[in-house]
Amino acid sequence: MSQKKAVLFIADGLGGRPSDYNGKTCLEAADTPNLDRLADRGINGMLNPLGPGVRPGSDTAHLSLFGYDPEEVYSGRGIFEASGIGMKVQKNDVCFRTNFSTVDKEMEVKDRRAGRIQEGQEKLKEALQDGLELNRYKDLEIIFETSTQHRGALILRGSKLSDKITGTDPHKTDVKVKKCKAVNGSKNVKRTAKIVNKITDRAHELLKDLDVNKDREERGKPPANALLLRGASTPPDIEPFQEKYGLEGVGIAAGALYLGVAKQIGLETRKPEGATGDLDSKIINKAKAAVKELEDGKDFAFIHVKGTDNAAHDHDAEAKKRVIEKIDRAVGYLIDKLDWKNTHLIFSGDHTTPIVYGDHTAEPIPILYRGREVRKDWVDRIGERSSVKGDLGFVNGQEVLPILFNYNNWLEKYGS
Amino acid sequence: MSQKKAVLFIADGLGGRPSDYNGKTCLEAADTPNLDRLADRGINGMLNPLGPGVRPGSDTAHLSLFGYDPEEVYSGRGIFEASGIGMKVQKNDVCFRTNFSTVDKEMEVKDRRAGRIQEGQEKLKEALQDGLELNRYKDLEIIFETSTQHRGALILRGSKLSDKITGTDPHKTDVKVKKCKAVNGSKNVKRTAKIVNKITDRAHELLKDLDVNKDREERGKPPANALLLRGASTPPDIEPFQEKYGLEGVGIAAGALYLGVAKQIGLETRKPEGATGDLDSKIINKAKAAVKELEDGKDFAFIHVKGTDNAAHDHDAEAKKRVIEKIDRAVGYLIDKLDWKNTHLIFSGDHTTPIVYGDHTAEPIPILYRGREVRKDWVDRIGERSSVKGDLGFVNGQEVLPILFNYNNWLEKYGS
Repeated sequence: MSQKKAVLFIADGLGGRPSDYNGKTCLEAADTPNLDRLADRGINGMLNPLGPGVRPGSDTAHLSLFGYDPEEVYSGRGIFEASGIGMKVQKNDVCFRTNFSTVDKEMEVKDRRAGRIQEGQEKLKEALQDGLELNRYKDLEIIFETSTQHRGALILRGSKLSDKITGTDPHKTDVKVKKCKAVNGSKNVKRTAKIVNKITDRAHELLKDLDVNKDREERGKPPANALLLRGASTPPDIEPFQEKYGLEGVGIAAGALYLGVAKQIGLETRKPEGATGDLDSKIINKAKAAVKELEDGKDFAFIHVKGTDNAAHDHDAEAKKRVIEKIDRAVGYLIDKLDWKNTHLIFSGDHTTPIVYGDHTAEPIPILYRGREVRKDWVDRIGERSSVKGDLGFVNGQEVLPILFNYNNWLEKYGS
Repeated sequence: MSQKKAVLFIADGLGGRPSDYNGKTCLEAADTPNLDRLADRGINGMLNPLGPGVRPGSDTAHLSLFGYDPEEVYSGRGIFEASGIGMKVQKNDVCFRTNFSTVDKEMEVKDRRAGRIQEGQEKLKEALQDGLELNRYKDLEIIFETSTQHRGALILRGSKLSDKITGTDPHKTDVKVKKCKAVNGSKNVKRTAKIVNKITDRAHELLKDLDVNKDREERGKPPANALLLRGASTPPDIEPFQEKYGLEGVGIAAGALYLGVAKQIGLETRKPEGATGDLDSKIINKAKAAVKELEDGKDFAFIHVKGTDNAAHDHDAEAKKRVIEKIDRAVGYLIDKLDWKNTHLIFSGDHTTPIVYGDHTAEPIPILYRGREVRKDWVDRIGERSSVKGDLGFVNGQEVLPILFNYNNWLEKYGS
């Protein structure tokens, strides 16, 4: 346990475009006195999570932010979702992110999220947990778990399985559920693709006539009568964070994917009370948890807020601005409570999510470092077009934590 | 076919040095109201085509600008020249860029370009096309074609050939034509080097007594009595542009090398009327062609102007400044005619060509992106020392098109 502390605060999808909010980005439009105070006292710059002109996923971006090369450790998001929900993933498990979704009789997707279903998931889960088995495949185990709303994960466990298969989510509506396909011709790959397609059929059979769905239909809501699978992946061979950096770290988040990434790199994880991974999340409780974990002995705390990205995916500029302002209040708490004599902190995002487009894009995101050893610059406002004037310049994802840990004199020397 | 459009406008050898024009570069000295307007409304920065401190060729720089790693796909310029002239290149053909040049009786080079010969090339070509054959080499075909002025290309077709050989152009005068040498000891390599040396001798025999050369000598002009060969290369294994990016593109140029690079990456090519690849080129016709191609359905247009580089190679600062001002008027046409709601555009160069040195150097070049989604910065003037203040920072060649295509939301996500 070091006296020194380090904090990585990531607002998902933080970056924006001038078309977001009357010529400004949401971050530029938001009222952020506390973030501006950090910018004013810190060193500022721009982050390219995966390098310039590379459009990041949240999973690959976070692996990169933790110092791992996604080209080496990333095969798909399923493993992080499953792990993030709390499923005990074993070596060689093939994991999927799942969606409860709505299909018609021809298996055409009508709603990829079954109306972001808020209730009845227990019944749906039971039906799948009890009924999903394919007896003709020897030693095959199918494990299903739900997360929030329509979200869940599924694990295939057994021999002769592979993650070299495509997903079944068409990522749009009014087209059929996609057939899972083998990416190459190997026997196990083709076998696994077949299993996934049988699971898709079987899940529809199990779900379509459930009372909870009949209820939904009666109330004019889209039934959760299908299961979409994507992000097939097996647990990566990752050097644990503690071995890589020699630090005790904790990940504080609510979104399953982020808890999962944190777990897979060996961080302890916390999901504070009231933290939902959505717009209504009690972000302040994440700041409180971080302060407590650092006081209790952790060297490093990762704080993740998802609402910024959700609002942008929903094309809602006002909501994104509000989440940023809520984040700002949580940052105010950190300013008050952290031991600034011994702490260095990063505030940034994992990628840009513009309002009009509503999905991730490749533009860089503001990043700032705050703490007593940083070379304070003249930037006094966080934002896409103010942070870029800072003295940090442009940094790539994998450089982010080494630059932070350097301020705490935690780095090993290369050479002598 | 997308509603959205992308334009890459490259002025060859655009960059300069303060020694070019009374302490300014030609770009800084030029009157460029339209480029300045783009700079003012766009995001600006500097481009290192092959990375800082790497001195680019025009071929390698363009491959990099199109997103290809020259280390992987580049073996020499011959293939691009041959292809650019319109020769039908086949797999395993060994292609050369050729120069008509002037030698004395000892084969000492007196003028590498035979006085930039403007007439009589047809007769020279006939003599070579009819007479260049080496019967002792079974199944060897020698194919020759001229381009503009002294320029041309030669193809060796047949078995047991290699491009692992040196060129015969000494790149200076008053020294002998170089012997072509094998780069390694393999049999086919040595065989090919021998063939090239025999072609050099034979070409001199065929050319030296032609009437067209006697005429030239009588008029005090250097005779085109020798053929210099360089840039030996075979067609590269390149992923076509359309597969790489999923876009329909067109290359608009006049210089053979640029048309050749565009063809080799699978772009359609256009050489508009009046476009010469030289100082007298009707650049405006390239801008018109680009607007038309985009209106007719292409997603992407590459516009190339060569005159800036030619003027700099000729140490002519006034001429380079004039070409830049002519480019500026073509840019004015683009400003008027492009559909700016749906278009993002790059203006930049492929390398620096300073006036005093008269050849390519490694300094970065101004680059700007213009379109509705860019984070507009405070730069309002294009130039080596104004663009560098922009918010784009420094970009490398291979990042250039991904950054452009990101603004059009054309990139695949890496991760999810």
